[in-house]
Amino acid sequence: MTSTEQSFRIGLLGHGTVGSAFAKALPAHADRIARVTGLRPELSGVMTRSRGSFDELLENSDLIVELIGGIDPAREYLLRAMRSGRHVVTANKQLLSQHGEELWETARTQGVQLRFEGAVAGVVPVIRVLQESLSGATIDRVHGIVNGTTNFILSEMARSGMTYEQALAEAQRLGYAEADPSEDVDGRDAAAKMAIIARLAFDTPVHLDQVRYEGIEQIQPDDLEYARDLGLELKLVGTAERIDGGLSVRVHPIFLYPGHPLASVGGPFNAVTVESEEITEITMSGPGAGGPQTASAVLGDVVSAMIPPASTPPTQTVLEIVQDVVSAFYLHLEVADEPGVLAQVAQVLALQGVSVKSVVQKGLGNQARLVMVAHPVLESRFEAAMELIAALDVMRAPPRAIRVLEEQFG
Amino acid sequence: MTSTEQSFRIGLLGHGTVGSAFAKALPAHADRIARVTGLRPELSGVMTRSRGSFDELLENSDLIVELIGGIDPAREYLLRAMRSGRHVVTANKQLLSQHGEELWETARTQGVQLRFEGAVAGVVPVIRVLQESLSGATIDRVHGIVNGTTNFILSEMARSGMTYEQALAEAQRLGYAEADPSEDVDGRDAAAKMAIIARLAFDTPVHLDQVRYEGIEQIQPDDLEYARDLGLELKLVGTAERIDGGLSVRVHPIFLYPGHPLASVGGPFNAVTVESEEITEITMSGPGAGGPQTASAVLGDVVSAMIPPASTPPTQTVLEIVQDVVSAFYLHLEVADEPGVLAQVAQVLALQGVSVKSVVQKGLGNQARLVMVAHPVLESRFEAAMELIAALDVMRAPPRAIRVLEEQFG
Repeated sequence: MTSTEQSFRIGLLGHGTVGSAFAKALPAHADRIARVTGLRPELSGVMTRSRGSFDELLENSDLIVELIGGIDPAREYLLRAMRSGRHVVTANKQLLSQHGEELWETARTQGVQLRFEGAVAGVVPVIRVLQESLSGATIDRVHGIVNGTTNFILSEMARSGMTYEQALAEAQRLGYAEADPSEDVDGRDAAAKMAIIARLAFDTPVHLDQVRYEGIEQIQPDDLEYARDLGLELKLVGTAERIDGGLSVRVHPIFLYPGHPLASVGGPFNAVTVESEEITEITMSGPGAGGPQTASAVLGDVVSAMIPPASTPPTQTVLEIVQDVVSAFYLHLEVADEPGVLAQVAQVLALQGVSVKSVVQKGLGNQARLVMVAHPVLESRFEAAMELIAALDVMRAPPRAIRVLEEQFG
Repeated sequence: MTSTEQSFRIGLLGHGTVGSAFAKALPAHADRIARVTGLRPELSGVMTRSRGSFDELLENSDLIVELIGGIDPAREYLLRAMRSGRHVVTANKQLLSQHGEELWETARTQGVQLRFEGAVAGVVPVIRVLQESLSGATIDRVHGIVNGTTNFILSEMARSGMTYEQALAEAQRLGYAEADPSEDVDGRDAAAKMAIIARLAFDTPVHLDQVRYEGIEQIQPDDLEYARDLGLELKLVGTAERIDGGLSVRVHPIFLYPGHPLASVGGPFNAVTVESEEITEITMSGPGAGGPQTASAVLGDVVSAMIPPASTPPTQTVLEIVQDVVSAFYLHLEVADEPGVLAQVAQVLALQGVSVKSVVQKGLGNQARLVMVAHPVLESRFEAAMELIAALDVMRAPPRAIRVLEEQFG
C-alpha cells in the first residue's frame, strides 16, 4: 500500500457460495482496484444469519455487500445501510423484484449508490448496459435466457434425448441445479429477473406478481424431437415488450427459429437481447449464476461504487508485444498435376516442422489443387515454409494461407 | 423544464454522419436524460472543420463531444478541453490508438472524464464492460469482430459465392462500405480498435503500430467453399491475448469452428468475446458502426459523464401490464386413431380463430399423434381452444402447447 492510499472498507452480509467467492476474489484483485480507484478495498467484516452484529458491521464499513438472499432481514439491512449514507451492492433478485421501488427511492433520496448487476444474469452486464449504454436509446423489446439451470436442462434434453427428470438429475450432479430446484424449473427465478430488467428498460414499476411465468417441467423429449424436425430450438425465454401502449412481461418455454440471437445459447449460459429501433439489437451472453461469476459481477459493482468510473487507469507494467505466435493454418495450393508434387510440398512442410492434419487433392485439367490444414505451429516457421513452397517449380499460382482457430484454443 | 433543473451544455465538434445523428438524438432523449441525471442536456454549439470558433465553443460548454475524426486538430481540441476542466467524449479510434496514453493521462491529472465507447464497436458496450464490469476479473484473451464492413463482405461471399470485388460493391451499394474502403478492408481500422481494447484489457500501453494486421482483399470464393466443406466460418478477427508473459495483438482472417461464439456473427455486426478463467467468457454483439448506432453509444457516454451513473431513476409513467398477447403455438395432441379426429380438432381451433400453419399426423398403434403449428393468435383465444380440445372424447392425454417465436417478430 502506498502512503497516499486510503482504504475503502467493505462489509459483507452472507457467506454462502457467492459470499465466500467474493471474500476470496476481493484480496486477489485489491492491487488492481487500488490502481484504478486510488482506494484500497478491504473486507471490514463478514456477517451471516447466525453470526455477527449488523450495527458493528455498518459502523466499520463504507459500503455494504448483501449476499444473504431472501426478503428479510436483507431488505431491512439494505435500507438501514443506505439511510446511514452507505453505498450498497446486492445480488438479491427476489428482493429487488418485490421491493425494488422502495430500495431505489431510498438510494435516490439518500444520494447513495445501489448496484445489483449480480442479481440478474451473473456476469452478463445487462443492468449496466440498460442503465448506462442505452440511456440514449428507446427500448422496444428485451428477450432473455436468464436462468442457467433450465437452459442446461433443455440443452441436455435436446442433445441426448433424455427426459426432463434425467436431465435435471444430470444438472444436479454437475452443480448446475440445486437440491431443491423448484424456483428455477418453474420459471419464478427467471420471472424475478425479468421484472428487474423490465423496470429498467421501460422506466415503469414492475412487480414479480405481475410477471406471468411457466416452467419447463412439462417439456417432453418428443417436443424436442419435433423441434429438431422443424429446425427450431426450445428455450425458456423471458420477454418484456411494449404492446399497444402497455407492457407485457412473461417467461415461458418457446421455440426459436435458428437465426434468433438466443437460439445458439446452450448449456448453463445466460443471454439477453435488447431491441431498439435506433440500434437494432444488442446481444450479451455469458455464464449464468455461479459463485465466482456472480462474485465477479458484484466486485465490478463495488469498483463502480468506489469512484465515478470515468478515467482509464495508468498502465501497470509494459508487457512485451509478442509478434510470433502459434497458429493452425489452412493452405491452398494450385500445382501442376504431375507425380511427386504432394511429396515435394510435404517435405518442405516437414523441414519447417509443419505437421499436416488433413489434405484434399483435386485434379483440374493439367493442374491440381491441394488444400491442407496444418496443425498449430509458430507462424514464422509456417511463413518460412510458405516461401519455400512458393519457389517450387510445380506451383501454378502463389500459395494462399488462412489461419484456423482450433477448438482447444477457444 | 422544471424550475429546479439546471442545464448541461454540450459542445459538438463535427457534423458528419455520426455528428448529425448525435445532434438529432440529443433533443429526442433530453427528457429522459433530465429525469435520470437531474440535468437538462442541450447543444451549446456545433463546430466543423470549416466553421466555428473552438474558444467560443469551449467557453459555452460543460462537455465536448469530438466527432470530427483524424489526428489533428482533434487531439489538440480534446487536450485543450480537458485542460479547461471539461469532460470529453470521442469516437475517434485512430487518435486513441496512437495518442491514447497522452489523452488518458491528461484526463487523470485534470480529474475529468474521457469516454470513448463509440470508438470501438458501435453500440456494443465493450469499453464499459472492460473498464467496469470486469474490473474484478483477470482477462486472458479477447477475440473481436470489430469491423462491420469486412464482416458483411465475408458473410456475402459465404452466402452467395460472390467474389471479394462483387461483395465489396454490394456493401458500398448498401452503405456498409465507404467509397474508399481501404482502412476497413486492409484490417487497419480493426487494428486500431484492437489496440484500444488490448490497452484496457491488459493495462499495458499498446500503439497501433504494434498491432500486426492483415485484411480480406486476398480471400477467394473457393476459400469459403472449402470452409463450408470443413464446417468452418471465415471471419476477420482481432485477437489480444497473454502469451508467455507478453501480449500478442493482431488482426487477420481466420477460420472458426462452428461452436465458437463469433462464428454465428453475420452481416455488418460486431461482436467481442472476453475470456477469463474466473468468468469463462462473455460475448457481446450488435451492429457495428453506423450513424445512429455510434451516436447512441456517444449519448450513453455523455449521460455517464453527466453523473456518476449510480442510481435507478424514478419511474416515469405507470405502463399497464398487458397479460394477453399474441403468439404462435406448437400443439401436441395424443388422440384416438379414428376417422374424423383431425376434423374435430380443426373445427375447435377454427371456432376460436386459431389458424393452422402446418400439421403432422403419426399413427401409433390404436392411437395417433397430431402435431400442429398455429399462426399467431391472442393467447386467451388459444387457451380457450385448448380447453375445448382437452374435453374432446378422442383425446388420449392432456394436450400440450409451446409458444413459437416467429421470424417476423424477431
